[in-house]
Amino acid sequence: MNIRTASLTELVEAARSGDNRAVGRLLTLVERGSAAAEEVAALTHPLRGNAHVVGITGAPGSGKSTLVGRLLAGWCQRGLRPAVLAIDPSSPISGGAILGDRIRMDDVIPEGTFVRSMATRGHQGGLALAVPGAVRVLDAAGFSPIVIETVGVGQVEVDVVAAADTAVVVATPGMGDAVQANKAGLLEVADLFVVNKADRPGAADVRRDLELMLDLAHVTGADTDDSGVYFRPQILMVTATTGTGVAEVIDGIADHLKHLTASGRLADRRAHRVKAEVRSRAHAALEQQLRHSMQSDAATAALEKAINSNFSPVDAARKIVQKITGD
Amino acid sequence: MNIRTASLTELVEAARSGDNRAVGRLLTLVERGSAAAEEVAALTHPLRGNAHVVGITGAPGSGKSTLVGRLLAGWCQRGLRPAVLAIDPSSPISGGAILGDRIRMDDVIPEGTFVRSMATRGHQGGLALAVPGAVRVLDAAGFSPIVIETVGVGQVEVDVVAAADTAVVVATPGMGDAVQANKAGLLEVADLFVVNKADRPGAADVRRDLELMLDLAHVTGADTDDSGVYFRPQILMVTATTGTGVAEVIDGIADHLKHLTASGRLADRRAHRVKAEVRSRAHAALEQQLRHSMQSDAATAALEKAINSNFSPVDAARKIVQKITGD
Repeated sequence: MNIRTASLTELVEAARSGDNRAVGRLLTLVERGSAAAEEVAALTHPLRGNAHVVGITGAPGSGKSTLVGRLLAGWCQRGLRPAVLAIDPSSPISGGAILGDRIRMDDVIPEGTFVRSMATRGHQGGLALAVPGAVRVLDAAGFSPIVIETVGVGQVEVDVVAAADTAVVVATPGMGDAVQANKAGLLEVADLFVVNKADRPGAADVRRDLELMLDLAHVTGADTDDSGVYFRPQILMVTATTGTGVAEVIDGIADHLKHLTASGRLADRRAHRVKAEVRSRAHAALEQQLRHSMQSDAATAALEKAINSNFSPVDAARKIVQKITGD
Repeated sequence: MNIRTASLTELVEAARSGDNRAVGRLLTLVERGSAAAEEVAALTHPLRGNAHVVGITGAPGSGKSTLVGRLLAGWCQRGLRPAVLAIDPSSPISGGAILGDRIRMDDVIPEGTFVRSMATRGHQGGLALAVPGAVRVLDAAGFSPIVIETVGVGQVEVDVVAAADTAVVVATPGMGDAVQANKAGLLEVADLFVVNKADRPGAADVRRDLELMLDLAHVTGADTDDSGVYFRPQILMVTATTGTGVAEVIDGIADHLKHLTASGRLADRRAHRVKAEVRSRAHAALEQQLRHSMQSDAATAALEKAINSNFSPVDAARKIVQKITGD
């Protein structure tokens, strides 16, 4: 099959039968957005399997990528077929900075897995549309677990991780990570904490800080969801470079999925993800219409009047919105 | 006049005849948003005078507020009637943290001037609507210059300063401010640099760093606007606590206004501000319609279908947008 000339239906078929080049091509289309991305969404949405979506975040230098490499190997050993979507907040080029900077991917990534870096291009709306689309492609292609790896810096990145089935927050000794995680709102979204570099001095302190904050959150009820279900995140000590503790992380992630399934929260989380995506798509569509409307003759005339004080900015905005809503 | 029961027209009249309580009341309405804010905009937009809008930003601790206090006194001595709008990015309560933290306002703020703190309430859209509305009220009430003071941390704050007629960036020795300003994009928007705390060691270094960066920006053409007009920002050494150099800042700000007027850029900047406000207002109106539409029965049904995979998220979003656009 020629990847470039194949129809979208052919690409989806090929992706489902294990052709990773087809998966890559579909992800490229999703990342670019536009009509093809929408068609890919329409084709793959009904093909969703039951992939376990795992968000992993942590500060730069927390060893997230090494941990993810270890998790991939561990999952493969257990007969799973994992994939990674690494969200790169800085690179303007899709090409693997997050994982690529730290590990030689060829050396670490087991065969049969799929790793993809996704650049956000400084485009928040783009990320909100591209990530669900990419997860859907990977899901339709039969991968599970699907890791979404982000550098936990901005609200958008935190939101992406929070929207996963299982959110893993990686902290390390000596960086005030526990406090930082608290500030960034990661404490509320984490389903599992990994204290990486646990062989270094201060690891026990990080653990203690996290335990204290979890205690506090439980007292205030901040950690209990609307239906009153409480799940206390585990805190696991790991040395990703040697692999110590990685098996426990794999177990912990599986345990959380069991909790989600047993408590009925899995369906809620997934419904919430679909709703968030629909909202993002509706928002993007309206944004586009606004851009068009702002360039119309009517908008130019209304702006001119506002600049000359014949119209107030409120009136001018109303004219421009009316072009869209037809009121 | 009873401030609480007066009509908006009466309030605007009172504000124009020098009643600062009326100005304060109008600003409260603008800050709250909603229909009253829109009516205030409609009433005050045609009454705009020709106020000189001066944006002032700098890192926390750069002595901005002390400088602004000095500028107010200087402008008053020259027979002007200045006002300050201090944008407070953190405080949830409108009440003066930026200026209030550092100076006893009663001691410093000259009579006849007007100082107001505006909380952003973590609401980016709110700031984009409230600031132009507040500037318009102050302008209609006859104040000029109107200072917009922000802590230069976020993009929104930088945008607010950049949208002023004259953008002043305050740097200080020993904080790597020049480099930070460069990173935050302040170098491109600054029309005037103030190196405050110029009596401290390292002030000359800050000046040199800024000069170098201005040289570099000029070589690359990053500082020259579309029409090819070049204005090299002055770098002024100030010790705001003693008042040394403040007169030069007042002159520098006035010089920049002269440049804007002579080059025809003043009208461009103001037209750009009106356009940005109209766009923000149109955006906010569409956002509101989207929130409504997401709660409609049609949206609930479409979301349900998307969750059950009968609809793709693209189709569901289309349904929701159609509720708004009527297509």
